[in-house]
Amino acid sequence: MSGEFALIDRYFSRPSARAVLGVGDDCALLQSAPGMQLAISTDMLVVGRHFFADADPRLLGHKSLAVNLSDLAACGARPLAFTLALSLPQVDAPWLQAFSEGLLALADAHQCELIGGDTTRGPLTICITVLGEVPADGGRLPVPTSALLRSGAQPGDDVYASGSLGDAALALRALQGTLSLPEPLLVQARQRLEAPQPRVALGQALRPLASACADISDGVVGDLGHILARSGCGARLDASRLLPLLATRQHFAGGPAQFDATYGPDLALQCVLAGGDDYELVFCAAPAQREAIDALAQTLALPLTRIATIEAAPGLRLVDAQGEPLQATFASFDHFMP
Amino acid sequence: MSGEFALIDRYFSRPSARAVLGVGDDCALLQSAPGMQLAISTDMLVVGRHFFADADPRLLGHKSLAVNLSDLAACGARPLAFTLALSLPQVDAPWLQAFSEGLLALADAHQCELIGGDTTRGPLTICITVLGEVPADGGRLPVPTSALLRSGAQPGDDVYASGSLGDAALALRALQGTLSLPEPLLVQARQRLEAPQPRVALGQALRPLASACADISDGVVGDLGHILARSGCGARLDASRLLPLLATRQHFAGGPAQFDATYGPDLALQCVLAGGDDYELVFCAAPAQREAIDALAQTLALPLTRIATIEAAPGLRLVDAQGEPLQATFASFDHFMP
Repeated sequence: MSGEFALIDRYFSRPSARAVLGVGDDCALLQSAPGMQLAISTDMLVVGRHFFADADPRLLGHKSLAVNLSDLAACGARPLAFTLALSLPQVDAPWLQAFSEGLLALADAHQCELIGGDTTRGPLTICITVLGEVPADGGRLPVPTSALLRSGAQPGDDVYASGSLGDAALALRALQGTLSLPEPLLVQARQRLEAPQPRVALGQALRPLASACADISDGVVGDLGHILARSGCGARLDASRLLPLLATRQHFAGGPAQFDATYGPDLALQCVLAGGDDYELVFCAAPAQREAIDALAQTLALPLTRIATIEAAPGLRLVDAQGEPLQATFASFDHFMP
Repeated sequence: MSGEFALIDRYFSRPSARAVLGVGDDCALLQSAPGMQLAISTDMLVVGRHFFADADPRLLGHKSLAVNLSDLAACGARPLAFTLALSLPQVDAPWLQAFSEGLLALADAHQCELIGGDTTRGPLTICITVLGEVPADGGRLPVPTSALLRSGAQPGDDVYASGSLGDAALALRALQGTLSLPEPLLVQARQRLEAPQPRVALGQALRPLASACADISDGVVGDLGHILARSGCGARLDASRLLPLLATRQHFAGGPAQFDATYGPDLALQCVLAGGDDYELVFCAAPAQREAIDALAQTLALPLTRIATIEAAPGLRLVDAQGEPLQATFASFDHFMP
């Protein structure tokens, strides 16, 4: 009765503020407010696939929850609580201390309460299930909810991406040694890879504005692709609007042209389109919402960039600033791709 | 976009009956009924620790959900829905087919709906988070709920165990080769290890009867220990009532005495007290409930055996039929024990 349970108590148990009953019993108990629906998502992070074995545990704790909060953001939900299942190769007190600090700091920032968990010995694996809430009375189709879904995009809608895209993928390549980045730019790009900020406030603010939304975890092509598949439509993506979203390229010494000359002409587009690990939101909205969305970008101090237009014809068409088709080979990040 | 998502679609996506929105968006949506609380629990199963690498995938699918439903049973909750996160070393269609069949058959039996998930490549790891519901208006202390908690045991309460105990642990020893069991008894004991039946109906029926409850996943000593720790009391365990709970010993050719002669005098008690993987319930109830509990055992066709008495003095005291103290070395199963 010592090891497993003492661990949970020491690093992860805190008095519960929001839950009826938190960590320590067979189940946690949570009461949702009248008229609210629960939004639920789960993500598993595995050593060697989602992070390096020697990853900074504080950043890893942060990121493990961030990727889950990003799913809540994508449906416009307010975070409530989460469970944590942890498989560890050994009991390493300093590691657990730092991991729990990173995790719980982000949890506190979003008032998202740790209400239960499980620990076991095994390869380092982190599985978080997060619960949030949205008002039920939203009148969306095909289900009665105010949550942002992937299925609501309409031909003629604008498509936006929040923040910057592709820098996390660039940092990953640098850490894997396949390219080299100047030190200050590497530091910033690593921050994007290792400490993503889930767009929780943006997601909630988009509920009355957006017709569809997804978070960008596997690259904008893949995640916009989910919206298109669920909405039964296609999109025209403007490369000239996408390229400036790679912050590293914008801030490169000598400018974007020097970045392209250094790393080749395709790298920027590949990272932006199919980089993965961005944890920004891609969302659709009717053109009538442009003013409101620009105002929201100001309020949140977060760029919201129009990158595409929804079209009735299925498929993704990548075009240049003149609307001419561009050839581009890209694939969204897929855990089972060779 | 093929592998990961196609997998989810093919084996795990089904129309949602209970959830507002099921598998396929960033979050699932669930609306709980007015006056109900959600009960939430998560369990992670890791290859080589909780199951063998060559475990029958159908049984593994069953057991992965069973251990989670057992947590809902322990608090008297009605199952609603669950999420599944799966790390797989490779995409193996027959394995996934069998795993999903075992999982979803048990889910259907308890009307517990798969509402979301995540798949990734990595060491075989299964993490399920299960959601159930209990009425809020229970008047229990210290929190307003009708859920069964670990914290309600009172001195003078009877302590019961459901079903049989220790046979799963015996099967594990046989499979590991540290002892040999006669074939028909091994088959039955393996059934207990590999296809445990969560006591969901019992848990719900106990809500008005029991003062405290836990499920027996790490051995009755450990799990009754959780109740005692949370309730601030102790218990006197009657070995003469515990030993008959080992079904293999009862059915052994030549009877219990022959079992003890074959395997040594301590094995049975060790398996019953600290075996693990039983997924029965251990619960406390005032002596005034004896008749109701006997009637419930009849209704459910499930033995409910009085095994102990709650006492004010902390600690677990093991006694023989005459109430004389017994020496016994036992430890509950602990994932970080050497």
